Amino acid sequence: MKFDITVLGGGGGHPHPTAQLVDVRDHLFLIDCGEGTQMQLRAAKVKFQRISHIFISHLHGDHLYGLPGLLGTFSLLGRTKELHLFGPPQLQEWLELTLKVSDSYLSFPLHYHEVNPKESMLVLDHEWVEVHSIPLKHRVPCSGYVFKEKELERRINKSAIHRYNISLEEMVMLKKRLKVVRADGEVLDPYLCCEPEEITRSYAFLSDTQPQCYDQAVLQEVSLLYHESTFLEEHVERAKHTRHSTAQQAGEVAAALRAKKLLLGHFSARYADWDEFKKQAEVAFKEVEIAHELSTYSIPLTYRT
Amino acid sequence: MKFDITVLGGGGGHPHPTAQLVDVRDHLFLIDCGEGTQMQLRAAKVKFQRISHIFISHLHGDHLYGLPGLLGTFSLLGRTKELHLFGPPQLQEWLELTLKVSDSYLSFPLHYHEVNPKESMLVLDHEWVEVHSIPLKHRVPCSGYVFKEKELERRINKSAIHRYNISLEEMVMLKKRLKVVRADGEVLDPYLCCEPEEITRSYAFLSDTQPQCYDQAVLQEVSLLYHESTFLEEHVERAKHTRHSTAQQAGEVAAALRAKKLLLGHFSARYADWDEFKKQAEVAFKEVEIAHELSTYSIPLTYRT
Repeated sequence: MKFDITVLGGGGGHPHPTAQLVDVRDHLFLIDCGEGTQMQLRAAKVKFQRISHIFISHLHGDHLYGLPGLLGTFSLLGRTKELHLFGPPQLQEWLELTLKVSDSYLSFPLHYHEVNPKESMLVLDHEWVEVHSIPLKHRVPCSGYVFKEKELERRINKSAIHRYNISLEEMVMLKKRLKVVRADGEVLDPYLCCEPEEITRSYAFLSDTQPQCYDQAVLQEVSLLYHESTFLEEHVERAKHTRHSTAQQAGEVAAALRAKKLLLGHFSARYADWDEFKKQAEVAFKEVEIAHELSTYSIPLTYRT
Repeated sequence: MKFDITVLGGGGGHPHPTAQLVDVRDHLFLIDCGEGTQMQLRAAKVKFQRISHIFISHLHGDHLYGLPGLLGTFSLLGRTKELHLFGPPQLQEWLELTLKVSDSYLSFPLHYHEVNPKESMLVLDHEWVEVHSIPLKHRVPCSGYVFKEKELERRINKSAIHRYNISLEEMVMLKKRLKVVRADGEVLDPYLCCEPEEITRSYAFLSDTQPQCYDQAVLQEVSLLYHESTFLEEHVERAKHTRHSTAQQAGEVAAALRAKKLLLGHFSARYADWDEFKKQAEVAFKEVEIAHELSTYSIPLTYRT
């Protein structure tokens, strides 16, 4: 029941631009693809042919320039599995010209899905997760992405099957969280007959953006929020001007969303000390971690009480 | 009197695509710019804002995809010094679209110089070197580049000045390698009055290409020849089909050119053992080195005897 985020670039400690790998039960999704992403995937020992979907937030080079090389490497290694690419308008035009001038032919089907950066959309309905886009406020059209685990059918507790002599028909109802009322008036409560129910987990990637209020339901109480914090508070005016966020602002967004945890990244190269980002975010929100390159952040399972 | 080549990518040992830095007396020239070149420049601790000219051999991604990111980083760091970019047709079109879709504005003047891949041209006449293009035989239009040191004025030997009581007018002639015949019939030989004369050095970059005969004068007796050797002899048919070379063929080219030394690179990822490339090249040519990433190869000064 894995839900892991591996920071490939855009964190502290190494100078690689933004890319993240989201692993939901061994299904691999890539968010952004800055230059060097394929080298970072190798360094992280990821079987990267298993990436099935790539989500591009916006077309700034530090989120994009690794994409043609990664697709070229997929082809060189003989990939045949289709790949789905999500991103803003012009991504397809640029990528097609790039592949054309570099005389690159893809060995696999590539499906483009244009994401409208002005509205929140369900962009992918996958077996295990839904992926929603979130309009961000940056200098160019830009979308964040939220990965939300789907609710699964409940699993019946084995001892309850024997205790209550549960029939197959009753199981179907209980798995759907429906109460069963028997002919004799006995009530089977799904809460009592099923295994503890996991709280569906979610991961939000919000980069690059200035801080804003988010009213999308899918973002509320997000399990793990990656929010950019390009600047420290001393450069709050610079952040505003370039449409980025400070660490403190990222903390405020996490607090407003009642997030469970905040992961900070996309630090400007002018700073060498990541601890200060953590401290400044903690002014508004307590559960803060620094995104380190080639580190993996697991979202743990929790259960309804 | 430095003449150094630093292999940034395309050698053995690391999975970085092709890029090389040529340092002639602290003037920095970049050849090709595969993905990750800017990270490799950092790893090599190069002051890379000093790069004044970039030469692109061809538009395959493994020689090209690091270019927009490098130019973007130049700008981010506030470069104002102009940059000259040499490469095949379509390079400008692609780069301009790439900078446009990624909303990148260069902070410095960028001058495009289209290189005709069908003929050998003097593409740069620089203070210390001439750079000539060489038509290569690859699947797409492709040029090699030769860096040839210029002949300098001779330096007069200090003890000769006293011994022969050499006048300023006589020095001017001797520095130009002209014999001086004095009124009394005495002859001053520049060979005897000047410091030992360095042999002008040269570096040739020939990648990607199938083997061919080169009749360009500038290539003959080249001091250091980098020649691609994508394949070993067991895959000679594959080399022919993809218009690459084997190590043995690279050795034969070096022998035909009477090169002083051969540097082998651009090995296919299917091979793990670079020593075998050296052995196979040595069938035809003795002075062979393997290009290792982040290694520097100096061309030593030698003197006319």
